[in-house]
Amino acid sequence: MIPHSHPRYYSLSERHALETGMRKGITHVQGLLAHGRGEAFDYLIGERTTNEARKAIRAAAAELLLAERPVISVNGNVAALCPGAVADLAKAIGAKTRVEVNLFYRSERRVRAIAAELKKFGIIALTAGGKNMARIPGLQSKRAIVEKGGIFSSDVVLVPLEDGDRTEALRRMGKRMIAIDLNPLSRTAQRANISIVDNITRAMPLLVMEVKRMRAWKKARLSRLARSFDNKRNLKASLLIIRRGVR
Amino acid sequence: MIPHSHPRYYSLSERHALETGMRKGITHVQGLLAHGRGEAFDYLIGERTTNEARKAIRAAAAELLLAERPVISVNGNVAALCPGAVADLAKAIGAKTRVEVNLFYRSERRVRAIAAELKKFGIIALTAGGKNMARIPGLQSKRAIVEKGGIFSSDVVLVPLEDGDRTEALRRMGKRMIAIDLNPLSRTAQRANISIVDNITRAMPLLVMEVKRMRAWKKARLSRLARSFDNKRNLKASLLIIRRGVR
Repeated sequence: MIPHSHPRYYSLSERHALETGMRKGITHVQGLLAHGRGEAFDYLIGERTTNEARKAIRAAAAELLLAERPVISVNGNVAALCPGAVADLAKAIGAKTRVEVNLFYRSERRVRAIAAELKKFGIIALTAGGKNMARIPGLQSKRAIVEKGGIFSSDVVLVPLEDGDRTEALRRMGKRMIAIDLNPLSRTAQRANISIVDNITRAMPLLVMEVKRMRAWKKARLSRLARSFDNKRNLKASLLIIRRGVR
Repeated sequence: MIPHSHPRYYSLSERHALETGMRKGITHVQGLLAHGRGEAFDYLIGERTTNEARKAIRAAAAELLLAERPVISVNGNVAALCPGAVADLAKAIGAKTRVEVNLFYRSERRVRAIAAELKKFGIIALTAGGKNMARIPGLQSKRAIVEKGGIFSSDVVLVPLEDGDRTEALRRMGKRMIAIDLNPLSRTAQRANISIVDNITRAMPLLVMEVKRMRAWKKARLSRLARSFDNKRNLKASLLIIRRGVR
């Protein structure tokens, strides 16, 4: 166990969670590389949730509450890093929420391992198996596979740590995309409607909190908040912070 | 196989090499995370060898040729990414060169796997086993373990992708340290005498080329080149490039 007082406690805990995820067949080797890239940006951002990220989180909370068919997309890193927060978020948004296992490097074995892990946290995840399978138009290979009654027919999708191509293809389908990505220059961050530039382990609990806080709000108020969010401007501000981090 | 024409050929090949390294028991999970961090900095630097890196590579070549007991330190990522370049470099510097397996997360099994891999490239690596083991003063745990006739009694050590603590401890022992590290802010880069801020797969072949080119040089000329190198200034210039990369 890593002592809580360790200055690098959070970062080391995340690495440990991903190592465990690897052993359980949840996390992919490429997921570790991706997390490493995220760590570098987190380091430059100061390993804190910026005001820009907070704004994006609030807008995301409003979008998720306004959605009629919201889906939380879960990959190997998300399942390893914050399965509890995924469960909390789904519960906070309400019964309309679906959680779907969606992998860049899809293998049925890994889909099953992730679904089993999520089940420990009370989540019955969609896995796009058999007759429930649909394909995202314009995407090649297994990356196109989604669940018919899940991502395929959703209106708002939260894609933490997702790939740019899929984000783009889902936007072409008319969906509102919310991304969590530490690299504001990534195609995912650039393509999403709302990009939360933050570490997922910090952003998810905050997102849960905001959803709970806004749950009693009227639709008009939620809409105003969601519409007032400017993703381009927010991303630019995040970039400036990273630039200042490189001293 | 990844087609050579692919725009991300080098980056994908590296990831593939590390995945293979994992399967062979050469690369550690933490090495994948570290490589991911490097990828982020490489992306910001433009995935090219900068003029600053070229200067550092030339100074490093001079230092290695001037050394009486040069050692190339090899870890799991180095063994997976560029074992051939390690062999070429050792040969180019000459018979005085030692190659030593040196791991952050040392396990005898991984040391053996790496030594076996290096052997395929004609390298008989030191492994700090049994009676040949010595310890770096001031370092805790297995990270202190080095070979008596290798790093312990060396005068110049090339540590590609090394950790900051060990670089610092070895400098305290009076050794000249050459690092290859894509993060100019890392403690390794900050502590080394010469920090090559470049991707190891690009830097190593260039280092081999420079060593070959300078092999016929007189000592005085090599010394002048090595002494004229200013690491602090070089690191600052590399940081500026990264800053410009964050647009």
